[in-house]
Order: sequence, then structure tokens, then C-alpha cells
Amino acid sequence: MEQNSFTISYPAIYSGTEKSEIRFISGTPDLAALFNPGNTDDSPRRFFVTDATVASLDFMQPFIAGFDDGRQGKDCLIILGSGEPYKTIESVLTIVKKAVEADFSRNDVFVGIGGGVICDLTGFAASVFKRGASVQFVPTTLLAMVDASIGGKTGCDFENYKNMVGTFFPAAKLYYYPEFVKSLSERQYKSGLAEALKTALLFDRELVDIFKNESERILSREDGILSVIIRKCVQAKASVVEQDFTEKGIRSYLNLGHTFAHALESIAGLGAVTHGDAVAWGIGRAAELSFKKEYVKEAFRNEILGLLELYGWETDSIPAVIRGGGIGERFLAVMHKDKKNITSKVRVILQKDYCDTFIEEVDDSDILSVLK
Amino acid sequence: MEQNSFTISYPAIYSGTEKSEIRFISGTPDLAALFNPGNTDDSPRRFFVTDATVASLDFMQPFIAGFDDGRQGKDCLIILGSGEPYKTIESVLTIVKKAVEADFSRNDVFVGIGGGVICDLTGFAASVFKRGASVQFVPTTLLAMVDASIGGKTGCDFENYKNMVGTFFPAAKLYYYPEFVKSLSERQYKSGLAEALKTALLFDRELVDIFKNESERILSREDGILSVIIRKCVQAKASVVEQDFTEKGIRSYLNLGHTFAHALESIAGLGAVTHGDAVAWGIGRAAELSFKKEYVKEAFRNEILGLLELYGWETDSIPAVIRGGGIGERFLAVMHKDKKNITSKVRVILQKDYCDTFIEEVDDSDILSVLK
Repeated sequence: MEQNSFTISYPAIYSGTEKSEIRFISGTPDLAALFNPGNTDDSPRRFFVTDATVASLDFMQPFIAGFDDGRQGKDCLIILGSGEPYKTIESVLTIVKKAVEADFSRNDVFVGIGGGVICDLTGFAASVFKRGASVQFVPTTLLAMVDASIGGKTGCDFENYKNMVGTFFPAAKLYYYPEFVKSLSERQYKSGLAEALKTALLFDRELVDIFKNESERILSREDGILSVIIRKCVQAKASVVEQDFTEKGIRSYLNLGHTFAHALESIAGLGAVTHGDAVAWGIGRAAELSFKKEYVKEAFRNEILGLLELYGWETDSIPAVIRGGGIGERFLAVMHKDKKNITSKVRVILQKDYCDTFIEEVDDSDILSVLK
Repeated sequence: MEQNSFTISYPAIYSGTEKSEIRFISGTPDLAALFNPGNTDDSPRRFFVTDATVASLDFMQPFIAGFDDGRQGKDCLIILGSGEPYKTIESVLTIVKKAVEADFSRNDVFVGIGGGVICDLTGFAASVFKRGASVQFVPTTLLAMVDASIGGKTGCDFENYKNMVGTFFPAAKLYYYPEFVKSLSERQYKSGLAEALKTALLFDRELVDIFKNESERILSREDGILSVIIRKCVQAKASVVEQDFTEKGIRSYLNLGHTFAHALESIAGLGAVTHGDAVAWGIGRAAELSFKKEYVKEAFRNEILGLLELYGWETDSIPAVIRGGGIGERFLAVMHKDKKNITSKVRVILQKDYCDTFIEEVDDSDILSVLK
């Protein structure tokens, strides 16, 4: 079992949230070993949160059985439904309620084992439980590994708007098992790959070249390449959130493609499009907008669109999943509710080149120009 | 209009929560003047939250009418039901939902105008709205002025447990109008007075003497004395939270009487006893426990109980509001769920003298000894 670790530091307001300890662990995930309790009366109990998909994986069975046969001691486990439709305030309150009922204290620990939805829900629940208990994540999707698990953004959807409520509350410990990626559906894998590509475009030119040259190894989830992608993305995102935890500057670059993506997800109905597919499409729209506003030459726009197509992502100006007319106006209506907006204009992330990124507040007519 | 102001500083994780600006304002509260919008397109909008009791005060009418006749510009107002029964997650979500519907951004500002319930709910809603928007308070009860408004604790009740969910999220601005205290019912006034007495016992020997010697002026809410009590308590609490924002040490002294009080409030049914009356009773139980454990002489215990009786607070070991048997065990069951507990023992705040305070984890038998 090869292991690697490092630490990210944050400004601390809550004790225990001032850093994230990160470990990469190769081989088949053995959570019964990782979370072997050896509980004494005074050690923190663990409240594990996972979803039905993760709980059904073969190699998870020894761990899950431990809650029935007593091996997990005083720890508790809750298994939620899988996917975006469960990313609700009701799920957050279900976690809190069970923890209250099981007499958890704020010195105990919440552990989210799952994708971005489980990490965001568990982090949110931990952050408000008795005004804040510690949280750890075992991200099980590529998306959660390269993005959602790092940097303390928690939350849930509300009133059909993505992540409308939440907190900043970093996980104290993060455990990365690249092996989980093998268990993902093609749809889930591609969703994470889009966020990895986004991170490459923003911060890691070498990783852009890997995406360009190694599509076959990447698409077949070859061990070595998975490990490289995960480590590079975790390190890039860790560095960004360490520099700018509350997203006043460089961290907002991570929203490349996201203004378009969140609007697409809202309009298609939360869960109809994967977050990553929406982001990939949004990256294409952002490149198109950079070109329309003459920040980049046609060749750069074409390189981006070509890279998206190489991995099978949609580059049409209007995604096939959207039905009905007045599309531009429907997008604008949602984009104006985006929580990143500061003025009444829509705020987007654009690039002049790989790793050369900026923020711009654009006119509605600019948005409309790339949505028809 | 006499004004005074100072600033409390905190460790910052969220931008805008690194300090609280405090202003004392004498005379009849004129909120229309204080919050005169003069909104341009780009200035923050205000989302005001108050309750039916505050909204019915005569001097509030010009302000409230401004939302109908356009004087408050793009600001919004929501009026919630009054009192502890409304301190629910549903109220928090109502605030968030209205703010989403009214297109508020996270650069806009929430303003709670009310007692502890309104401040805690508004602060909680602001802290999770799009992962955190700024909040300001105009506390209108003595309790909110001397305690709830200062120091960033937000939250609501959940599953019949007090403040089971919430965040640390300080208000950016705090406006104290002692005049609001005149509008309180006797019950509400006494509730705040208990927290003020608690602050005196912990941190301000001079204020203890004022409580001992000036009960007539205090009980008749004489202008000069109200102003002294509010300023002294705000300054004491500000100093405490500045030294220990996340309650690792001295801040936990503010829970003097509260372990007993929260249990009483839970058992009596949330809202049946005022928080302050419960705290006053709890201060008596803590003094009794200090005496039983020989930390203080009988004379000190008697001084505390005498002071409570001077203001009409209950000093019986079992409050009249509690019915049925097995009282000690019922208290213990709730106290073991108190979010301040670290180990399996109940954690209480005790005193050896005025302004000489410590924390102890006590045996169940100690608790039982002062509840019969």
C-alpha cells in the first residue's frame, strides 16, 4: 500500500478547519482498515455518510458489515440515495437528525464517502451540527477527487438552484484512492474528467498536453495515468485554495465554464446533465466567447473545441438536451441569479491562452452571441 | 442623537466577518433614517428580517411603511412570527427562499431587527445564503443587546433541542438603541436582565454591585441605568469573544447557568420558560453545586440566591413549571445531549467567587444533588 501525503493550510475561524491533511492510497480501498475504530470511551466517534451506489461496491462490504457486527464500535453509518436529486436540505437535515438521535457531540467526526453530492452534503451537515463538527472525506468519484473534496465549499441545491445554500468548511482529512475511479460508470467518469481538463487549462500546461496526447490511456482509465491526473489536479486545486480560500481572486478562475454549466443544469432540470458534461460544454462556450470578443485567435478556440470533441463532449452552441424556444433568454434569466455575480451583469471566466485567465462582467448580448 | 461606537475584531475566514462595528444610539429609534437607502444600481440591497411584535411598535411604522410606498427602494422586508416557537429551520429557509426569489446576491446584506430569535435566525440564513452574505443586527430586546447579538453565534432549534444547528458568523454592524427596552413586556425584560446579571457575575464586579444596590432603578427601567447595563455588558462580551471567538476557553464561561437552563427549556417545552428565567434559575443551581462541592462558602451561595430573589427569579431546586416525577433523570438525559459536552460527562461552569470562574466535568450524582 503506497501512500503519499501533504497538507493544505487555511485561515482558521473554526478550530480544526485550519488545514486539510491529504493522503493518496493505491490499491483496493480497505475502509475497514482505514477506519478501524479501536474506540475508547473518549475518542471521537465517526458518523459516516455514503450513498447507495458506493455502499453496493463489492470491496465496501467488509466495512459496511462492520456496523452490524459491532466491528465499527460506536460509529454510525447512514446510506443516502445516489445523485443530484438527493442534494437537498432534507438530506442535510436527515444527517443532522440521525447524529442528534445517536447522541453525537461536536467533538465527534463526520466522514463523507462518496462523490461531490455526498461530500458537499456531509460537509454542510458537519458545519452546522452544533455549530460545527470536524469532517473528513473519502471521495469516490473522479469529480469529487479533483474538485469537490478540496477547498471547503459545502452546500446543497435549493428551490432548483444549484448550491444555493452552504458554507465554507474544509475537511480535516482527505483520502484519495484512485482505484474508486474504476468503479464509475462512463457517464460519471467523463463528468470528473471535464473538471480535470478544466484544472489543466487553468493551471497545468503539462496536463493539457497529456489530455491532448494520451486520450486512449485516459479513456481506458489506465492506472498510471489516472494517478497522474488525480495528483496533479489535487495539487493545483490545493495551491489555489491555499492562496485564496474565500474566492476573492484566483480561486474564481475555477469557475471556468461554470456560469454556462450551472445555467444548463438548472434549465435541463438538476441531474439531467452531469455536472462535468455541463462544464465541458461551458468551457466550449467560454472559448467561443473569448474568440467573439477577440481575446483569442480562431486557432485557440478550435484547439479547445477539438479537445472537447476528442473526449466526446458536446460543442454545439445549444446542447441537445435543451428543448423549446427562447433559449438565450432562458439562460440569461438563470445566469442573472448566479451567486458569483457582483453587479447586475453576468460574470464569466475567460482565457487569453492556456493558464492565462481573467474575469469579466459581460453584456447580455455577449452571452446571447454564443448561445445561438 | 448621541452616538458612540467601537469595533470588535475576529479571525476572518469569510470576508466581511472579520469585525463588528458597534454603535449605541439614544432616543427613539428611527430606522427609516438609519437605513435610508439612497440605492444606486450597484450598492448592496438590504433584506430586513423582523417579527410581528417589533413590526407592531408605533415608532417602527414609518420604516415599515417605506417598503410599500417605495422609500426603501430595492430593499425587502419579511415579518416572521414572534418567539421561540418560530426559531426553526423552516424560518431560516423561508428567509433564504424569499431572498432567492427577490434576486438577492451574496454581496447584498441581511439585517435582523428583533430579539435573540430574529438575530440568530437572520445570522444563520445570511451565513448559508450562497455560502455567506453579510449580516447586521438591530437588537430590540435586552437579551439580544447584552448577549445574542454579539459574537457571531447563529442558529435555530431542531428536533426540540435548542440551537442544535447553526454557524459562527458575526454581524458586520450592530446598532444598540436602549429605548427599545422600554417596549418590552416584563417577562422579556426580566429575561434579558438575567443574562446581564450573568455577565456581571462573570466579568464585572462593579455591575454586580449595581445589581445589588439599584434594584429599584433597574426594575423601573430608568434611562440612565439601562444605558449603563447595556454598555457594560456589550463591552464585557465583546472583549470575551475577541479573546476567544471559537469558545476554547474564557468564552465558555458565558454558559454559566446554561447547562441547567437549556435542559429546563427543553423539558418545559421550548418557549414555556423564558431563556433568561431559565438562566437565572440555572445560575442558582450552579451556585448550589459550587457550595455542595465546597468551592464556595454558604455565604456566597446565599448572596447569589438572594440576588436572584431580589429580582423575583426562582431559586427552588425544582422549578414550578416542571410536572411529573423522575425529574433528576429527565434533566440528566437532556444534559447529556448538551453540545458543550466533550466527554460523556456533563460539563458545567462554576464559580469560586465573583469574576472567578472555571469549567468542570461533573458526575451525574453531583447534578442530581442540586435537583431535589
